[in-house]
Amino acid sequence: MTPLRIAVTPGEPAGIGPDLIITLAQEQWDAQLVVFADADVMRTRARQLGLPLTLIPFSVDNPQIQQPGELYIQQVNAIVDVVPGELNSDNGRYVVETLRLACQANMDATFAAVVTGPVHKGIINKSGVSFSGHTEFFAHQSNTIDVVMLLATEGLNVALATTHIPLEYVSRAITPERLHKVIHIINTDLKLKFGIAEPHIFVCGLNPHAGEGGHIGKEEIETIIPALDALREEGIQITGPLPADTIFQPKYLKDADVVLAMYHDQGLPVLKYKGFGAAVNITLGLPFIRTSVDHGTAVELAGTGEADAGSFRKALQKAIELANRHQ
Amino acid sequence: MTPLRIAVTPGEPAGIGPDLIITLAQEQWDAQLVVFADADVMRTRARQLGLPLTLIPFSVDNPQIQQPGELYIQQVNAIVDVVPGELNSDNGRYVVETLRLACQANMDATFAAVVTGPVHKGIINKSGVSFSGHTEFFAHQSNTIDVVMLLATEGLNVALATTHIPLEYVSRAITPERLHKVIHIINTDLKLKFGIAEPHIFVCGLNPHAGEGGHIGKEEIETIIPALDALREEGIQITGPLPADTIFQPKYLKDADVVLAMYHDQGLPVLKYKGFGAAVNITLGLPFIRTSVDHGTAVELAGTGEADAGSFRKALQKAIELANRHQ
Repeated sequence: MTPLRIAVTPGEPAGIGPDLIITLAQEQWDAQLVVFADADVMRTRARQLGLPLTLIPFSVDNPQIQQPGELYIQQVNAIVDVVPGELNSDNGRYVVETLRLACQANMDATFAAVVTGPVHKGIINKSGVSFSGHTEFFAHQSNTIDVVMLLATEGLNVALATTHIPLEYVSRAITPERLHKVIHIINTDLKLKFGIAEPHIFVCGLNPHAGEGGHIGKEEIETIIPALDALREEGIQITGPLPADTIFQPKYLKDADVVLAMYHDQGLPVLKYKGFGAAVNITLGLPFIRTSVDHGTAVELAGTGEADAGSFRKALQKAIELANRHQ
Repeated sequence: MTPLRIAVTPGEPAGIGPDLIITLAQEQWDAQLVVFADADVMRTRARQLGLPLTLIPFSVDNPQIQQPGELYIQQVNAIVDVVPGELNSDNGRYVVETLRLACQANMDATFAAVVTGPVHKGIINKSGVSFSGHTEFFAHQSNTIDVVMLLATEGLNVALATTHIPLEYVSRAITPERLHKVIHIINTDLKLKFGIAEPHIFVCGLNPHAGEGGHIGKEEIETIIPALDALREEGIQITGPLPADTIFQPKYLKDADVVLAMYHDQGLPVLKYKGFGAAVNITLGLPFIRTSVDHGTAVELAGTGEADAGSFRKALQKAIELANRHQ
């Protein structure tokens, strides 16, 4: 059997992304890890960390998995030298190019998944490239109209109906169309990518106590309940809307393949509390598997050896787990 | 030393409130528990549960604590007979009267705290009494203008800047004045009632990522940060605004006497997840200590012996704990 081939992008080169990948490359993985990066940046960082690193040029004909201390590499040339801890907008286009090539490689289906390290959106935009995030970039590159953000930790998956918008806009963003799309994407990808035959989706209300029968907001009655009923008619297994402060009880979670929160701070505090900093971000709706760390670039730790590889490890494990189910 | 005297209100008589109090009266408490209720209702329910119950009329001159199987009682006459499991609006005024007398007893300072069982707001309103909740009722009865809802579980206190309002209104409800009042109430009551010399208050932002420097909403920059800065000038210890999905990490929680969430579903899902159904509701800002269960009337379980007294036990323990610190 051909081993899984996983694209790995370090993200911001002055941040901890390269460190985390080099750290994880010291372990044995049941996949061929291919880093999309500049070989010099990776080698220099490995020396700074005092870790061995042999870079092997990636070739589509080579099915070997790497041994501890090795990494396969798809060379992408950095534009200027990288100094750990010092953001430089001159390399913004380099970062975006690593993502573009990793996306392309996954679209070609020569890869089974992509795992992304943290980027610094501000510095990419400063370089003159409009960039609102990995998710949007991959969606655009893969001609995908709608995607759904899902955060996963041991025993809990939380998907979001809206993501990084002001709280004030959330009520208007929750439309029947949005719920229809989001739940279809979740249902499809839990089948396709997670291998769950009949996904059971638990859905939060928008308002406190899920509106308490209309006493605390009307969106449940006017929008959410009718939308969920229509989706149930199509045969999708849905429970809810339930109050967000009771949906995370064990009696519900034991049956929930995913909890759909209406907005960011309704679902992620519990997930990250439970996950203890080891949550994995998974983009549903893309034509390939993409997982990501759930933390930032932590530039102050780059090159120090003090960066915690926990989230990147989980993201890589999850990508391999999903890719295996997907085959 | 005079023992603590704690007022206990069963709430809805057709619900599980009487059951929980009778169950807890079987234990030894280091306080005089005085139930504000109809003696017949309590005796009948005890028989249904097969539990012993001796009711002793409350007298301000009697400082004895009750023994297991005993309860002190302040008689309040029910209006019609109570059938467990059958809500009857004719008793709405009875429920409200138990609360009014318990409030009065605490205002007189003959009591150290009040612990409330679950009421059914709908059935009280149906009886012709406008009633929006315990908290509002006690605030009105005690001539208190502003109160703050705090939920407590082992190792975590979460206070709310807004409570039971539609999500859509939250942004407008977060004003400098509201934050000023809420944080002053928290600061004062953590000192007075919790006995914390210098409370450290951790505050969530309103928007995802606490607005990410204004990229995801302006309320942090325009309202929250200036309000917190002004409160720090007064010497109140405040950290934040921090993103709600990172504020519940151990590195913050270890220093936080309380986390102030901007709205209901930002703070309570984590608290209830952590508390596993044993959270206590504490009303800050009242001139007396008031704790409450965090669950509903569960009328279908009334009289069956299957109601879980966990939350009521925690509420009673917390009231006694706070009353001891307060003395």
